[in-house]
Amino acid sequence: MPIQTTLCGRPLQGVLETIERFHGWKAPGVVIGAFMVDLAQECMGPAVEADAIVETRHCLPDAIQLFTPCTFGNGWMKVLNWDKFALTLYDKKALEGFRVWLDLAKTRKFPNLYNWYMRLAPKQSLPLDVLLESILEAGRSMLSFAPVTVTRYFGKEKKLEIGVCNGCGEAYPCSQGTLCLACQGEGYYSFRGERAPESL
Amino acid sequence: MPIQTTLCGRPLQGVLETIERFHGWKAPGVVIGAFMVDLAQECMGPAVEADAIVETRHCLPDAIQLFTPCTFGNGWMKVLNWDKFALTLYDKKALEGFRVWLDLAKTRKFPNLYNWYMRLAPKQSLPLDVLLESILEAGRSMLSFAPVTVTRYFGKEKKLEIGVCNGCGEAYPCSQGTLCLACQGEGYYSFRGERAPESL
Repeated sequence: MPIQTTLCGRPLQGVLETIERFHGWKAPGVVIGAFMVDLAQECMGPAVEADAIVETRHCLPDAIQLFTPCTFGNGWMKVLNWDKFALTLYDKKALEGFRVWLDLAKTRKFPNLYNWYMRLAPKQSLPLDVLLESILEAGRSMLSFAPVTVTRYFGKEKKLEIGVCNGCGEAYPCSQGTLCLACQGEGYYSFRGERAPESL
Repeated sequence: MPIQTTLCGRPLQGVLETIERFHGWKAPGVVIGAFMVDLAQECMGPAVEADAIVETRHCLPDAIQLFTPCTFGNGWMKVLNWDKFALTLYDKKALEGFRVWLDLAKTRKFPNLYNWYMRLAPKQSLPLDVLLESILEAGRSMLSFAPVTVTRYFGKEKKLEIGVCNGCGEAYPCSQGTLCLACQGEGYYSFRGERAPESL
């Protein structure tokens, strides 16, 4: 099968450059993700502006953010921490869409890809160039897809009632209690030095 | 105070266009986020390639993804679901950095901004243009910052051991049990029609 030369409506080379610019390097997971998004978009057809659900926090969310209108911050992409290499694009009204996944059985035909995915190859024995070549060669043939109805995680998150924390004086969602989570001891920072927070 | 004409090393107009292209619209939260990132970067200085922690899932993560090298998918940005409008950039080795937040007390000087943030203004009474003007006028004067040491959520997530799920045959982290979370009933989809997943 010849190597696919366009992905998500863009030339392959541009896709790779876009990935490197945003993600920091041509990560194999994001490159595979571009093939997955491309396939899911083709399944959905051009008329639907789809929402996205992605089943891992690693790499794949960036492919969705780069090649669909869905981003983490605009809420159209939901991320599950399942560590499964799969995504679903779906019509937010009909809740019908397509799930696409990296099909382990199919990757066996591409040992570099299989070994990378199953974390069987030490990094030094599988240079990025070689792995990317295997991915481009595999293309869609490493993927499977199925039509699905989305039953959870759709819809907008409700914005919560905002109040002023009695501890830090910052705005926070009242549902957290009389203090924000940071003032309840869940914070991830300590102030450096003796000084109070600086004002501008 | 004159309106700041460059943010994160780019002309303001380019920043607004970049936000619209990625996020879908010039969301006030992302525009404020650009000022926050700009301030945090100035505090950190140009020599440090910082990691990021952001304290809300709304809007702000996109400002970090657009104006720093940190993305959700590359793991350099961690997102807390605290609904607080704050972020920290920090040196991943020294764990020292700066937390920047939208300072509620300071926003009182800009009633549109305050009312939007506290969700006191119905959308139809506060057009986007008017709100954006208030944000650009406020600029850094709506923010506070403090030097912090990061005590949690830093570092790379450990990649888990991968196995093959006995239910769906897909790769999954073995720590989830003998079945993946979807096969345990936590899935977000049902297959449409009688057909098994399609192969390519």
